[in-house]
Amino acid sequence: MKPWIESELVRKFTASLNFDRKLYREDILGSIVHVKMLARQGLILPQEAEAIIRELGKIRDEIESGEFKWREEYEDVHLNIEATLMERIGDVGAKLHTGRSRNDQIALDMRLYIKRVTGQICESITRVQEAILDLAESHLDVVMPGYTHLQRAQPVLFSHHIMAYFWMLERDKGRFSDALKRADECPLGAGALAGSTLPLDPEYVSRELGFSRSFHNSMDAVSDRDFILEFLSACSILMVHLSRLSEELILWSTREFGFIELADPFTTGSSMMPQKRNADVAELIRAKSGRVFGHLIALLTVLKGLPLAYNRDLQEDKEGLFDAVETVLACLEVLEPMLRSIKVRAERMRSEAEGGFLMATDLAEYLVTKGMPFRRAHEVVREITSYCREKGKELRDLSLEELRSFSELFGQDVLERFSAEASVKARNAPGCTSPEQVKAQILEAREMLSKGGKT
Amino acid sequence: MKPWIESELVRKFTASLNFDRKLYREDILGSIVHVKMLARQGLILPQEAEAIIRELGKIRDEIESGEFKWREEYEDVHLNIEATLMERIGDVGAKLHTGRSRNDQIALDMRLYIKRVTGQICESITRVQEAILDLAESHLDVVMPGYTHLQRAQPVLFSHHIMAYFWMLERDKGRFSDALKRADECPLGAGALAGSTLPLDPEYVSRELGFSRSFHNSMDAVSDRDFILEFLSACSILMVHLSRLSEELILWSTREFGFIELADPFTTGSSMMPQKRNADVAELIRAKSGRVFGHLIALLTVLKGLPLAYNRDLQEDKEGLFDAVETVLACLEVLEPMLRSIKVRAERMRSEAEGGFLMATDLAEYLVTKGMPFRRAHEVVREITSYCREKGKELRDLSLEELRSFSELFGQDVLERFSAEASVKARNAPGCTSPEQVKAQILEAREMLSKGGKT
Amino acid sequence: MKPWIESELVRKFTASLNFDRKLYREDILGSIVHVKMLARQGLILPQEAEAIIRELGKIRDEIESGEFKWREEYEDVHLNIEATLMERIGDVGAKLHTGRSRNDQIALDMRLYIKRVTGQICESITRVQEAILDLAESHLDVVMPGYTHLQRAQPVLFSHHIMAYFWMLERDKGRFSDALKRADECPLGAGALAGSTLPLDPEYVSRELGFSRSFHNSMDAVSDRDFILEFLSACSILMVHLSRLSEELILWSTREFGFIELADPFTTGSSMMPQKRNADVAELIRAKSGRVFGHLIALLTVLKGLPLAYNRDLQEDKEGLFDAVETVLACLEVLEPMLRSIKVRAERMRSEAEGGFLMATDLAEYLVTKGMPFRRAHEVVREITSYCREKGKELRDLSLEELRSFSELFGQDVLERFSAEASVKARNAPGCTSPEQVKAQILEAREMLSKGGKT
Amino acid sequence: MKPWIESELVRKFTASLNFDRKLYREDILGSIVHVKMLARQGLILPQEAEAIIRELGKIRDEIESGEFKWREEYEDVHLNIEATLMERIGDVGAKLHTGRSRNDQIALDMRLYIKRVTGQICESITRVQEAILDLAESHLDVVMPGYTHLQRAQPVLFSHHIMAYFWMLERDKGRFSDALKRADECPLGAGALAGSTLPLDPEYVSRELGFSRSFHNSMDAVSDRDFILEFLSACSILMVHLSRLSEELILWSTREFGFIELADPFTTGSSMMPQKRNADVAELIRAKSGRVFGHLIALLTVLKGLPLAYNRDLQEDKEGLFDAVETVLACLEVLEPMLRSIKVRAERMRSEAEGGFLMATDLAEYLVTKGMPFRRAHEVVREITSYCREKGKELRDLSLEELRSFSELFGQDVLERFSAEASVKARNAPGCTSPEQVKAQILEAREMLSKGGKT
Repeated sequence: MKPWIESELVRKFTASLNFDRKLYREDILGSIVHVKMLARQGLILPQEAEAIIRELGKIRDEIESGEFKWREEYEDVHLNIEATLMERIGDVGAKLHTGRSRNDQIALDMRLYIKRVTGQICESITRVQEAILDLAESHLDVVMPGYTHLQRAQPVLFSHHIMAYFWMLERDKGRFSDALKRADECPLGAGALAGSTLPLDPEYVSRELGFSRSFHNSMDAVSDRDFILEFLSACSILMVHLSRLSEELILWSTREFGFIELADPFTTGSSMMPQKRNADVAELIRAKSGRVFGHLIALLTVLKGLPLAYNRDLQEDKEGLFDAVETVLACLEVLEPMLRSIKVRAERMRSEAEGGFLMATDLAEYLVTKGMPFRRAHEVVREITSYCREKGKELRDLSLEELRSFSELFGQDVLERFSAEASVKARNAPGCTSPEQVKAQILEAREMLSKGGKT
Repeated sequence: MKPWIESELVRKFTASLNFDRKLYREDILGSIVHVKMLARQGLILPQEAEAIIRELGKIRDEIESGEFKWREEYEDVHLNIEATLMERIGDVGAKLHTGRSRNDQIALDMRLYIKRVTGQICESITRVQEAILDLAESHLDVVMPGYTHLQRAQPVLFSHHIMAYFWMLERDKGRFSDALKRADECPLGAGALAGSTLPLDPEYVSRELGFSRSFHNSMDAVSDRDFILEFLSACSILMVHLSRLSEELILWSTREFGFIELADPFTTGSSMMPQKRNADVAELIRAKSGRVFGHLIALLTVLKGLPLAYNRDLQEDKEGLFDAVETVLACLEVLEPMLRSIKVRAERMRSEAEGGFLMATDLAEYLVTKGMPFRRAHEVVREITSYCREKGKELRDLSLEELRSFSELFGQDVLERFSAEASVKARNAPGCTSPEQVKAQILEAREMLSKGGKT
Repeated sequence: MKPWIESELVRKFTASLNFDRKLYREDILGSIVHVKMLARQGLILPQEAEAIIRELGKIRDEIESGEFKWREEYEDVHLNIEATLMERIGDVGAKLHTGRSRNDQIALDMRLYIKRVTGQICESITRVQEAILDLAESHLDVVMPGYTHLQRAQPVLFSHHIMAYFWMLERDKGRFSDALKRADECPLGAGALAGSTLPLDPEYVSRELGFSRSFHNSMDAVSDRDFILEFLSACSILMVHLSRLSEELILWSTREFGFIELADPFTTGSSMMPQKRNADVAELIRAKSGRVFGHLIALLTVLKGLPLAYNRDLQEDKEGLFDAVETVLACLEVLEPMLRSIKVRAERMRSEAEGGFLMATDLAEYLVTKGMPFRRAHEVVREITSYCREKGKELRDLSLEELRSFSELFGQDVLERFSAEASVKARNAPGCTSPEQVKAQILEAREMLSKGGKT
Repeated sequence: MKPWIESELVRKFTASLNFDRKLYREDILGSIVHVKMLARQGLILPQEAEAIIRELGKIRDEIESGEFKWREEYEDVHLNIEATLMERIGDVGAKLHTGRSRNDQIALDMRLYIKRVTGQICESITRVQEAILDLAESHLDVVMPGYTHLQRAQPVLFSHHIMAYFWMLERDKGRFSDALKRADECPLGAGALAGSTLPLDPEYVSRELGFSRSFHNSMDAVSDRDFILEFLSACSILMVHLSRLSEELILWSTREFGFIELADPFTTGSSMMPQKRNADVAELIRAKSGRVFGHLIALLTVLKGLPLAYNRDLQEDKEGLFDAVETVLACLEVLEPMLRSIKVRAERMRSEAEGGFLMATDLAEYLVTKGMPFRRAHEVVREITSYCREKGKELRDLSLEELRSFSELFGQDVLERFSAEASVKARNAPGCTSPEQVKAQILEAREMLSKGGKT
């Protein structure tokens, strides 16, 4: 193979322009502050700094308007901007990279990026939480079967069920915001790995860029990608929640459950079967958890066993991250209107909550209040449900006599226990499913959102 | 297949006693507080509560002394303890499970467990950090080659290099302690999924058990395993750091690098080759990152797409977690004395830091201080190093005349730049590798540890 | 820390006895053949070989009877056996390790183990396949709704649906057996990495141990763990299949679907809710996919970037593998009787297959046979189903007149299309769901099993 | 949110055109054969078939020349092609989708794609193998230190070491080709899940498309993605191998090892440090293992617990696969010339192989040939190396007297053992490192390649 063919092959193999150009805003911002610092420290002249900053501003505008000419012969976003700068303002531009390495430069860009998208994600999560709250608040009277093991367990309020996702999402925001604490450290000035012999001022740079602090250790600063790992972990856990919610939406909108209807825009048809209204959106959200887990494991793999300080392996931190960010944002963005579009089939939910043996626990607990130890009460009610199954009866079909044949402790008042609504109402400890408690829960949640969240 | 054979097969398949017995302490503690609450609420008599609590205390003592008879016919830790209780104190014992389900019980046990081991892990990390600090402090005068891409880059202090790991570990503690905020919520009282019709007091239970708050939502309380996912993520990132440090210890103790010697107890021989002194401990730590990543991905998989509330799938949250905890603790425990045992071969490091072209950047920055734009200076020095490679010379072998043939800007003072120690000293911005800055770094780190850490 | 405490700590950290003792059978077998070879090559005397072999046989018997005393001070299975041998027969035992390293020894043990368990797994898969075939064959007349997107799509035979899993399992066996081709290479004689200066005969050893060939390259032989990765990949794909089947069993046994009942031994109750009959076994199988994926990713991580030849990291290949093998075998073992225990609720399936708009595609294809292009026919039927939804009608409720108001092409014969059984019968191409084709499918499957499978 | 905004949002969220257009070739090929079959079966007229096929050919040409207008309002490759067809040839085009669903259509496209890229990957692997063979053959006289635990172990031939990778790659090809057996099944005719009521001929389609067989079960045919999982597993294992080789190239080209030099096109400089020549290409290959593992785990996650038959989740099978294919091909493509570019520093390797205690095992085996049991010989040599370490001597510096002070069995002939070349030559069993055996190994490998490989 001819050397120039090899070089071309290698250039393509190592190039990152195709994906790291997404960082142009962060890159230019970092360069501007770097140049200001260089001027403050007397490393370049004020008028040189001005010329560079002015031209960088123009380049940013050109990129945003689509006029900027990206050139593949410069392998990454940094070189594209710097080379253009040098072409336009000559030797002055050649001073931009003074006291800086691409190692601390890219570390800076990535941290600025993470800070930006974390804010976006948290806002998108909040919008989904608001949709959940509105859904919960407007259906406070809807009782449905609660499930464990996908078998009917006890009646719950639909609002209670859906509010479970509010708290999952609240924890997600907590994770993203805690992760930010560790991302919030400015690496510029760490150079290639050991800083610079020039009199730089990393703390000025850090302040100007809005970071809480400058780096503690230059070698750590250029080789640390914890903040991406932690961000991807938070994304993965968020996707677990979205996949669980999607699974429930899919189940609930089957003909078999029949609990909800998704609005037309959120269902799709079939190329073969004319009658289909499939919950494709929910299916895709469920599935997209996979790619986010994959990006997490990919970066863990990349970093495993890597010696200090910078290694080219670290270039592989970007594409997976960018895709995770897009995936998470897209899922949240489509989930919010989908949740708002849900038509709750309240009658169906209610009637299904009455049947089954959903009130069996209530019955056992009734016996406990009459003095029977719980384990005995559990056995007695187990026998009653077996009896019902044999006879093809529901619990509420039983007469007081039939009940008393299992235990003398049953009195007239037990008959009030066979209503799903009474059952729900009776679960009235904090955090439980009674209307009173669910209202309190919603109130607390609303306050939390209005305060901008807590963890 | 005969039904009893099937039953036996299923019993074995679903049993968790073998691993969840590890939770006996948490389980008994939770039961004791639960019983106290039942008595306070008038759901059982004070003397019944006392009898149960007394017997539970005895059972705990028996388990700890090894006298307790675990029985496989009771599938898990909960049933073993409850069944024994009932055998010993009869019907009174049958009241223990009043208003409680195994769903909220196991969620409680797991949260108490996570809280306990998080403390242990953070203490173990701190001990490793102290070993790093001691190592850094006692070798402040040792210059070594700093690497990027495993190619020599610039001279750094050994103390600076090793301190990079201090900060990684500091972030790890931050992650564990942030995760704790979300684990610190008491689920007892959530019942199977919807609470209880009995007048329980979950907030009392939460306070007594030392939690910050009781659950917000009972369905979330029994189905949430975020706190384990987040814990496993923190473990995985920690293992990334340990694997990187191990890789460096392995490299440094090769004959080729020759930078350190590990003490005899931390090396092992070969069954075939009599001369070997292998860094097996470091290799195993490096490798054990794999299993921790695996446990994380395993639980993400388990939880993906799971409908609310409790499902038996959640039983699979334990073995991986327990193994991750043991792995992380064992790695930290063995790493600390291994780090303390390191014999730093200071002379070798120093002499290697002098050779190579480690001072090339210094030379370019020298030209910058004389007014040459950095990009030009970079090119000039690149030519100088090519010239050296051709001539088989080191940079320090060059005469001033030779240097000046590349640039007139070189003056007499450049010759002082060719010492590794001068180079290190000149990198004197905060967080960089000069002795002054590294001392400051160590001081800050010591203070941080003495204050009990920050994130 | 005192050196002996450190040594003890390291011993525990590096010890593998706790899990590798599982390999005693393979280890002793390998040693016996190794000794035979040594004698054949004149490296030890015939009577020495006999003494060693006799004693190794005794040790194996003692291990199997539980009499053997494992000693933790010897870190692994190899040393335990060899040390015991030397204690008993002295210097002669010290010759066992001639020309051998633990590196090639453990590689051999692992390959023998993989060969053994692959056979077991394939047999267990076959038993599950037989259960599927019996289930399919005995329910050939049961029509059920077929699903895409968990929405009803078209009627299918229950036997057709369940037979889909037969073919998945058949491919699983193909994967395991193909993987075996690459595991089937004897590494003994590779020594630590480069063979031995003694005149060994690795090809004799390979033949005696039943391998297809001896190693091609000694360095590859001691560092290769492909055969475990490939085995774990095959296990992971198998677990995907089992998780999908489990999901369907869980769905089908909900009250909402109501398609099957699992026999009592395969359901479990609740500690709180007396009425529950949960499909815990199926849930656990579904969840256990997670740990197997985790073990795969763990070993991929371990091996990533590892230089040749043997590194202690490779010790981490065992626990995950052993757990994967146990998991897969246990899942298959419990699945087979569970499948045989299924009570198919044929009436429910059938009646559900009639309703819905399951015959919509048939209707469109009817129009195609009358000359309408498919895309147009699809639109027409889409309008018909919208009309039905509005009117609250099923397709079969439509009169010929109503149908003809959508297209003149509808004739009297269309009315025969509204039966689920007719619909199923009409899907009669090879591999499709008509009774004729499903019978042929079962026949082919039976023949395949009786021939011992193909891929 | 207005419905049309929602629809637009959903359209974008569910669209796959952006990535599945890569399948246009497979999609058009499948459509052509489908149409031929429809005509053969009398479902469309011959002239209709001709018109469709002609137009499909034109569309393919337009796509390849870049003229084709992809339209985002059609969500995927299938609709883009079909809609264009219908616009151009009207109702006739509307017949293309007769008896077909996108479910079996995309399953077909993916299988055709896998078959195509598997061939490409195997060819690329072969080219890397040839580079390895050439490298091995042209350096047959180069002795180097062989390593275990990255500590020097025994002398080996460089050719032997590098040939280890030949066999890894040979197994990789075996895995890809075995996977193909299971991918080689034509799913067209399976329809949405149950086939069609029209008289299709799936076996004709299968034959025409070059598949070995048509589907066994239509539900399996549309929901099976095993062939992608298995392909991604094979890619992951291949990437393990490439990451190991890359790690060694990186180590060998450090100043510390100094065993090889990579040609200029395969190294890159630093933006800050003028002297650097980094092995970025090897680092990127090593790192890219991560993303391939990630894609595997992503698809395993997607498929876990998915009920039959088709679900939209399956759309997530593509991007990861496409990226894995590009990654693997790019790594192989750049690796081949990089290997060919390696300058082996034979003198350095040789001199390093002489030092150290690399001949310690030879010494122990010498004693074995004199009658000492191996374990004793191992101890004796261990003492000798300790003695050397104390005295600062190499083994070859010892006099016969010194040796005899450790064992009387040492004779004059032992002194010949202290040459690396003699040591290598003495390891002469098949598969070991003697020049004779390595030559035989290379010969066998060449023959294997010329025959087109075996597994």
